[in-house]
Amino acid sequence: MKAIELQDDWRLENLRLTERPDPEPGPGQIVLAMRAASLNYRDYLMVQGGYGSRGGTLPLVPCSDGVGEVVAVGPGVTRVAVGDRVCPGFFQGWLAGQPNKADFATTLGGPLDGVMTELMLLSADGVTKVPAHLTDDEAAAFPCAGLTAWSALVTHGRIAPGDVVLVQGTGGVSLFALQFAKMAGARVIATSSRDERLERLRALGADHVINYRETPDWSKRAVELTGGRGVDLVVEVGGAATLEQSIRAVRIGGEISMIGVLGGPKPGINLPLVVMREVRLQGVTVGSREGFEAMFRAVESHGMRPVIDRRFAFDELVPAFEHMAAGRHFGKIVVAIPATA
Amino acid sequence: MKAIELQDDWRLENLRLTERPDPEPGPGQIVLAMRAASLNYRDYLMVQGGYGSRGGTLPLVPCSDGVGEVVAVGPGVTRVAVGDRVCPGFFQGWLAGQPNKADFATTLGGPLDGVMTELMLLSADGVTKVPAHLTDDEAAAFPCAGLTAWSALVTHGRIAPGDVVLVQGTGGVSLFALQFAKMAGARVIATSSRDERLERLRALGADHVINYRETPDWSKRAVELTGGRGVDLVVEVGGAATLEQSIRAVRIGGEISMIGVLGGPKPGINLPLVVMREVRLQGVTVGSREGFEAMFRAVESHGMRPVIDRRFAFDELVPAFEHMAAGRHFGKIVVAIPATA
Amino acid sequence: MKAIELQDDWRLENLRLTERPDPEPGPGQIVLAMRAASLNYRDYLMVQGGYGSRGGTLPLVPCSDGVGEVVAVGPGVTRVAVGDRVCPGFFQGWLAGQPNKADFATTLGGPLDGVMTELMLLSADGVTKVPAHLTDDEAAAFPCAGLTAWSALVTHGRIAPGDVVLVQGTGGVSLFALQFAKMAGARVIATSSRDERLERLRALGADHVINYRETPDWSKRAVELTGGRGVDLVVEVGGAATLEQSIRAVRIGGEISMIGVLGGPKPGINLPLVVMREVRLQGVTVGSREGFEAMFRAVESHGMRPVIDRRFAFDELVPAFEHMAAGRHFGKIVVAIPATA
Amino acid sequence: MKAIELQDDWRLENLRLTERPDPEPGPGQIVLAMRAASLNYRDYLMVQGGYGSRGGTLPLVPCSDGVGEVVAVGPGVTRVAVGDRVCPGFFQGWLAGQPNKADFATTLGGPLDGVMTELMLLSADGVTKVPAHLTDDEAAAFPCAGLTAWSALVTHGRIAPGDVVLVQGTGGVSLFALQFAKMAGARVIATSSRDERLERLRALGADHVINYRETPDWSKRAVELTGGRGVDLVVEVGGAATLEQSIRAVRIGGEISMIGVLGGPKPGINLPLVVMREVRLQGVTVGSREGFEAMFRAVESHGMRPVIDRRFAFDELVPAFEHMAAGRHFGKIVVAIPATA
Repeated sequence: MKAIELQDDWRLENLRLTERPDPEPGPGQIVLAMRAASLNYRDYLMVQGGYGSRGGTLPLVPCSDGVGEVVAVGPGVTRVAVGDRVCPGFFQGWLAGQPNKADFATTLGGPLDGVMTELMLLSADGVTKVPAHLTDDEAAAFPCAGLTAWSALVTHGRIAPGDVVLVQGTGGVSLFALQFAKMAGARVIATSSRDERLERLRALGADHVINYRETPDWSKRAVELTGGRGVDLVVEVGGAATLEQSIRAVRIGGEISMIGVLGGPKPGINLPLVVMREVRLQGVTVGSREGFEAMFRAVESHGMRPVIDRRFAFDELVPAFEHMAAGRHFGKIVVAIPATA
Repeated sequence: MKAIELQDDWRLENLRLTERPDPEPGPGQIVLAMRAASLNYRDYLMVQGGYGSRGGTLPLVPCSDGVGEVVAVGPGVTRVAVGDRVCPGFFQGWLAGQPNKADFATTLGGPLDGVMTELMLLSADGVTKVPAHLTDDEAAAFPCAGLTAWSALVTHGRIAPGDVVLVQGTGGVSLFALQFAKMAGARVIATSSRDERLERLRALGADHVINYRETPDWSKRAVELTGGRGVDLVVEVGGAATLEQSIRAVRIGGEISMIGVLGGPKPGINLPLVVMREVRLQGVTVGSREGFEAMFRAVESHGMRPVIDRRFAFDELVPAFEHMAAGRHFGKIVVAIPATA
Repeated sequence: MKAIELQDDWRLENLRLTERPDPEPGPGQIVLAMRAASLNYRDYLMVQGGYGSRGGTLPLVPCSDGVGEVVAVGPGVTRVAVGDRVCPGFFQGWLAGQPNKADFATTLGGPLDGVMTELMLLSADGVTKVPAHLTDDEAAAFPCAGLTAWSALVTHGRIAPGDVVLVQGTGGVSLFALQFAKMAGARVIATSSRDERLERLRALGADHVINYRETPDWSKRAVELTGGRGVDLVVEVGGAATLEQSIRAVRIGGEISMIGVLGGPKPGINLPLVVMREVRLQGVTVGSREGFEAMFRAVESHGMRPVIDRRFAFDELVPAFEHMAAGRHFGKIVVAIPATA
Repeated sequence: MKAIELQDDWRLENLRLTERPDPEPGPGQIVLAMRAASLNYRDYLMVQGGYGSRGGTLPLVPCSDGVGEVVAVGPGVTRVAVGDRVCPGFFQGWLAGQPNKADFATTLGGPLDGVMTELMLLSADGVTKVPAHLTDDEAAAFPCAGLTAWSALVTHGRIAPGDVVLVQGTGGVSLFALQFAKMAGARVIATSSRDERLERLRALGADHVINYRETPDWSKRAVELTGGRGVDLVVEVGGAATLEQSIRAVRIGGEISMIGVLGGPKPGINLPLVVMREVRLQGVTVGSREGFEAMFRAVESHGMRPVIDRRFAFDELVPAFEHMAAGRHFGKIVVAIPATA
């Protein structure tokens, strides 16, 4: 079978198409014929060594998110059957409940081999069935970005109808958060620096939009839009650049989902405001299989579809990464994986 | 001012239009000019003595649910102002958090005087402001039935998008539960004994309907509709008649909101199923002011309107009760209260 | 290796000592040299066919609770190592979070083979390490009864210091509940029908005791002991015989952990009290591995030891069951398992 | 009656003993004969203008924490009776549930008059009855520091037996947190810079102590003490000086209660660690009356007593503040209030 490997050193140009032996499923294992992958910024940092020792060792099959069809099952497998279409979970070992250290070392695309491969060997416990209405590209878009948004809003944030959720920019997590927030009956305030993108956010369901370039002190506007009460939940992806505004935008007793770790300086935290207004800052890092299954039940129930920016071919992974790095995409970037004969 | 009083004895025919002195607000108090009331089955039982010593003493102004305009405020009142339109809370003393015995003795329409009065004296703490889009009739429909449904689904049930909620029949709580469940992104299964009502439930948003007369073993059908998983939350209003089916319909680890106390025999409980499938039975009795405020934020955010069956005049309270007792209504029964000059 | 099997038919006298081939661990599997087992009433019902088709097929190795030492590990096992002392979990497949149907079919002692065997083959995921201070007999006492009590009080009940917990009788779950409740800073009311047992409950830490034979209306006494507020959590193990009193004993908004399924008539439920006082009835059936690990961290931290009634030899399983059925034990009944040479 | 007022300007030396007219209770109000007060660092900052406009206007009776006896009740008061010993709540308006802006403006000792007065007029809703075993000095010690610790551990942190809690230094909140954590069955790690204080922390129940001067990288030691798992809850009172160590000490999915706002530079937050390990930072600011009542039930149930450092006379408020500012106290500083004739 064909796979893409990062070889020799942690540099984008070391991604190479290679041959690997076809995997055989042992007890409790399955083999997937992969059909599509999607890219996360983590994948881009990873192949450049950005996650240090957490990235594992080379050669490494990159990228964590994708979808495939079960083509073989090992002895004792009952969770899935040949022909099922499934997504591997980002944390292969985090099935439910609280995560632990061991679970956190089971991430795909480093240290474990990822999805850029024709055939993928996994534990049957590590996958979730895909709703029928999703195309392969759409299904591949969900694992990291979708589940992170779901965990922030539902698992941790427990948002209810009438709550106000603020999402920042047009990255994958933010778009999913907008869609899930609307699904849960919340009101959504979305921010971006470009009016044309604000229009697209509105079309996706945002009730209010703020151009943060024109309104750098956007927390004031957000609080106004809630009648002075403040936002119930901020999905914070900007780090140092936005945390102060997020803390000012959130209501007394509200929650900020801490997601963005895109680097940049260590953000200073406005401690008096956090303490005296009982703000909660909740780190969110993807989620468990239990959350994934709940998310896909909701996606199926609503016939929801994610936003796909553009599709690249299997041998265009480097251009796909470059497209992502350029930062002009709106929605997930997908890479097709050719069917094995 | 005019008021309706239950006089002498706990019988429907003892409801009499009477005169009372206009109230004056003391410190922390307000006076409402009532505009509309709505009926609950509790009101009907209450005026017939059905709540025993919990009903208080006669004469009593009946009915707990209504809406009025603030026409006077006493010293120190800041929560509301003259001109605000507000609903009194069923439990005047249950503001937030866990209820206690003292809070539970502060219910309107017995032991405290209720809403069938032109002017009503209340603590400023006991009311909640009404969304602007609601008519008076619509606002009056919410307090008990709406908040009970909200508490069952949101406060206790914490439903999330993709959850499946089952509602029974066409009573006020069930219709509100259907509407709130859809608002929260849940899938709704609704039951009724008449096809014409099932059509109306569908029109209100029910995803699936079951005629429980044709399908007495409706739990099986409900489980099928969830792909074998079971229902996440059953809003149980039928008591002995339906509890066994509700227990069979709910998923492992699911919840049954126990609401119906309409009398009838003591229901037997299928203990092995409850224990071995970790079912939760949660008694729900209206809710706190904090819940009321959250509900009205959601109602406002969604521009939601309740279902009104029919409107009676202030001097038609007895016919209005008889209409309710006949059981053919669909939605809340409202009683207009004339504006004081 | 030697094992005890239930052969031919579901009757106590069909328990026979037999030989089975030594198991070999496959990938992800381990072999335990079992050292001790403890009995639950479920085991007694099970060998007599009391769980119907849920009991699986014969021959069956009975009993779910025990402790063993890891003597072999298969490829890929990292959770435990040879030499570790571990308890198998009652639900082999329920690792964390919400249970589902598939997890519920993975119970030891039927349908899966249980612990009455010298060597036991298990998934490495299905066991929890044992605190060092516990003897083998003590460790074997925990799995079902200990985790059920833990789940009732901690996982579901979330009791806090100062809460009042009521435990009934002197069964395994009730004694564990008493010990865990004291550990969590709660005040404990314990009931029994015999004064001598009430003394032993006091010695274990019960703050108040009630002889329910002398005080059949014991809920009144329990409410008095809480200054009129009511009990925060009742660990209900008596079913039809006690449920009415439990509902009367619990505070407004309190919780009843539903555990007892020892048969008897279907209990009638006092619906008006449950509904109007917002009582929660929570079915509890053992718990997940995540709960087991949390329980053992607490047990280790407190150096806690369970109450052992009596120890039987491996070939005394039938007398051990008869001792349990006689109902005069106080604490867990343990069965030794001889070390394999 | 006599009272201490801050007059003219926000400076410690402007605290003056003065005469005020005796208060009369209106409807729903009560009058307390104050017996003792205790000091918080907030009081010290407040009288020096440290809370800006939130401090209200002069003259102001300082200090929020104290205990008094009910000597008069106004019409309609049922919660308390003459002769009851009660503590006023820090937030007079935050009774239960989520706080809001209006509640947050009802703090004693600024903007509302505080406890340094012989007679105090309050809403009957704003006080909590005191357990009988506490002396006046002890009761006065609880309101801010005790409830903050309780809210951090119980209301927000929901700690369970076997959890590991880390407390920092020997301030009031930290000592209460140590005591409540032990009450809840947790294991406690305490830090201080002086060995003699570490001994006192041990005597109060700390299971492990760390001298953070000798071990500046104390998070490593804390993680070791948990067997590598990390601390479940850190009660963070040090702000910029300690936050990085706290983030490193806490387990995956653990919680940091953010309490310290003693000024100093804006702490930088280690965002990648917070996000990738799902750490929760929860601002905690005292708590509601519902929490106060729960705390006092626990205190009563355990016969718990707070640590009192030293008692000053009513006319020694300035020396008492100076003693606190010197930072050598261990436990709460109490000020006696003379009984009115």
